[in-house]
Amino acid sequence: MNTIIFGLPGNERLMDQLAETIGATRGELSMRQFPDGESYVRVVSEVKGMEAIVVCTLHLPDGKLLPLLYLCRVLKDLGAVSVRLVAPYLSYMRQDTVFKPGEALTSAYFARLLSSFCDRLTTIDPHLHRRSSLAEIYSVPCTVLHAAPLISAWIKANVKDPVLIGPDSESEQWVSVVAKDADAPFTVLQKTRLGDADVRVSVPEVERYMDRTPVLVDDIISTARTMIEAVGHLKRLGLKAPICVGTHGVFAGSAYEDLVGAGAGQVVTCNTIPHPSNGIDVGELISRTLIKDQQP
Amino acid sequence: MNTIIFGLPGNERLMDQLAETIGATRGELSMRQFPDGESYVRVVSEVKGMEAIVVCTLHLPDGKLLPLLYLCRVLKDLGAVSVRLVAPYLSYMRQDTVFKPGEALTSAYFARLLSSFCDRLTTIDPHLHRRSSLAEIYSVPCTVLHAAPLISAWIKANVKDPVLIGPDSESEQWVSVVAKDADAPFTVLQKTRLGDADVRVSVPEVERYMDRTPVLVDDIISTARTMIEAVGHLKRLGLKAPICVGTHGVFAGSAYEDLVGAGAGQVVTCNTIPHPSNGIDVGELISRTLIKDQQP
Repeated sequence: MNTIIFGLPGNERLMDQLAETIGATRGELSMRQFPDGESYVRVVSEVKGMEAIVVCTLHLPDGKLLPLLYLCRVLKDLGAVSVRLVAPYLSYMRQDTVFKPGEALTSAYFARLLSSFCDRLTTIDPHLHRRSSLAEIYSVPCTVLHAAPLISAWIKANVKDPVLIGPDSESEQWVSVVAKDADAPFTVLQKTRLGDADVRVSVPEVERYMDRTPVLVDDIISTARTMIEAVGHLKRLGLKAPICVGTHGVFAGSAYEDLVGAGAGQVVTCNTIPHPSNGIDVGELISRTLIKDQQP
Repeated sequence: MNTIIFGLPGNERLMDQLAETIGATRGELSMRQFPDGESYVRVVSEVKGMEAIVVCTLHLPDGKLLPLLYLCRVLKDLGAVSVRLVAPYLSYMRQDTVFKPGEALTSAYFARLLSSFCDRLTTIDPHLHRRSSLAEIYSVPCTVLHAAPLISAWIKANVKDPVLIGPDSESEQWVSVVAKDADAPFTVLQKTRLGDADVRVSVPEVERYMDRTPVLVDDIISTARTMIEAVGHLKRLGLKAPICVGTHGVFAGSAYEDLVGAGAGQVVTCNTIPHPSNGIDVGELISRTLIKDQQP
């Protein structure tokens, strides 16, 4: 079956890359905002009888939802057999429980909404904290890909004598996997509470790592507060300027500039969200799964 | 049955007014955006077993949709018997047909989405052009209210010797109704095409209106291009500075400033969209229908 691929504004680069590697037709779109803020969506290409792929990463999700829904719906109305959403970054994964009575369980509501207008979802390392699988909230089939091997490979190829450091104990499991594939030692920052407002942060056996290049790794860099604090601790402990690696560089507000300003030696992210810090490509990873799933 | 009323940010004033006149409890909300642009919604008040009303006018709709959906869904999850959306201005009414092949029929898609998370919709003068009723696209019951009598009353009370002027022939029917109730004469701008690029705009029997105050009336003032042109024509014809009246003052970008700058003597709108030009109150009109529909 023929496949046609569309990219929402801002996703053109990844869309082009995927089109080339999976041999799909590039779909032509006309999308804009009217002066009153309403969205206009037009599918210029023929899509009847085709499998459609829509590439739209979902940081800053609120303003993107309607144009995305409009595109997916019109593709079906124009006769596309299926619409597969490729959202390398999946938003609204953090409100995964009701912390205070009356809170909207946005992860579930967002999942239900997305599931109502696409037939399938492909994403990379969604923030699964209290949930073990997207299937708990998404009613359409979801393919979850993992960037850890790509991050390991990048570190192996680009950093001499690295030591991987998780910014908190929560990150230990994930960082240990990345470290193993990168043939590098790893550790996590340890917090010891000495009093109500007195927390000491240390790196166990720090003397072993003084000549290595510390690599801080985390899944999402959003406000970058965690990374910035970790960079500060490493500096105080006398370690080299660390390299900060994130799967998803959301970088809210001035987070990127703040992280660089705090003394990060380098900031590297996967291109799940387009950003100047993108250094680790997820295109091939996504392509492989799209090719595998193509109907004959 | 008890009624509780909530207003999304920006709708507090109308919400307060409605709460007071219909005797409903003011609902307490906590709503904000996280630094990464995701929305947080929490209903602080008890809503179990109550009829909930949500006030959210829908200009600049794209960024509002998710918070609104989250609020309506959580109200139901918290046990509200029904959720009635009061949206004095209803967006996405203009793409009411497919002008070019492949266009998303956003009016229908938006209607389907809204109908999926509220039980009932109340609005004022939606832009029904090619459709005769909201029921063609909305699957929930819709109450449509009309601001024309309020506009007539405002003109009668505030303008001495008015002449109502429709900016184009499309507006004739509506303007004639407003004029009748205002006990005022009316006319519409007439365009005579003399050549490809030569259009003469005139007011029939203009000499009859030289001593009157022209009142331009239209349903939506968005970019204000139509109004600004009409103001220019009236000035050229030697009429007094016109008063511009709109039901919905969307005012895209600098539209309001441009309209004032073009020579409008005064700009007055209904408070369907909060704006400094609001001079005609729709609160009582909405209250009446809410009271009428209250369950015993």
